[in-house]
Amino acid sequence: MAGTGFASTPPPPYFAVIFTNQRADGGDAAYVATADRMVELAAAQPGFLGVESVRGADGLGITVSYWRDEAAIQAWRRHGEHTLARERGRNEWYQHFELRVAKVERAYGGPVRQEGP
Amino acid sequence: MAGTGFASTPPPPYFAVIFTNQRADGGDAAYVATADRMVELAAAQPGFLGVESVRGADGLGITVSYWRDEAAIQAWRRHGEHTLARERGRNEWYQHFELRVAKVERAYGGPVRQEGP
Repeated sequence: MAGTGFASTPPPPYFAVIFTNQRADGGDAAYVATADRMVELAAAQPGFLGVESVRGADGLGITVSYWRDEAAIQAWRRHGEHTLARERGRNEWYQHFELRVAKVERAYGGPVRQEGP
Repeated sequence: MAGTGFASTPPPPYFAVIFTNQRADGGDAAYVATADRMVELAAAQPGFLGVESVRGADGLGITVSYWRDEAAIQAWRRHGEHTLARERGRNEWYQHFELRVAKVERAYGGPVRQEGP
């Protein structure tokens, strides 16, 4: 899931699914292929707004996906291929994960103008 | 901010500040020292619940801090040393950032038992 960059989300309110995870050793090729496929599939779901994903050198990762509403999150959760991928994640790919569903209430940011040296 | 691992948060509701950022080139030593200091300071604020932080090899980072309520987030925002660090972040350390404040409504997870090979 490298290279997803920043999500272009609409004005709040919308929902965030914060998925923090520690990779287990091994299975990298299958993991990366599945993770890429999940991003591709998620992006095709109704109500998907974007995703931001980072993994550090120590195997800790944070993926935040953004959704229009709870119904969109629940529909994605029930998606068959996603359900199978989650089971494989629990059984093979992750040592530990924490998943939090949150309602985004305010947001700001953007590119930053750098000052000269 | 390496090595923060997982946050041990209480049952929801609580708040998450999702800070996605792309580092600018340079200033690494001052940045790391300040980032570490901000985690230390944040952890000492009333209502701080924990933090999870990852930076990828491409300089994209996600830091999620967890707070008891909006008042705790606002108090941390007004903290003098944090305010100065944010200004330096905008001027020197980040190319782009997005900050989202969200109310965590449900959460689950934990260590995963690995199946045998």
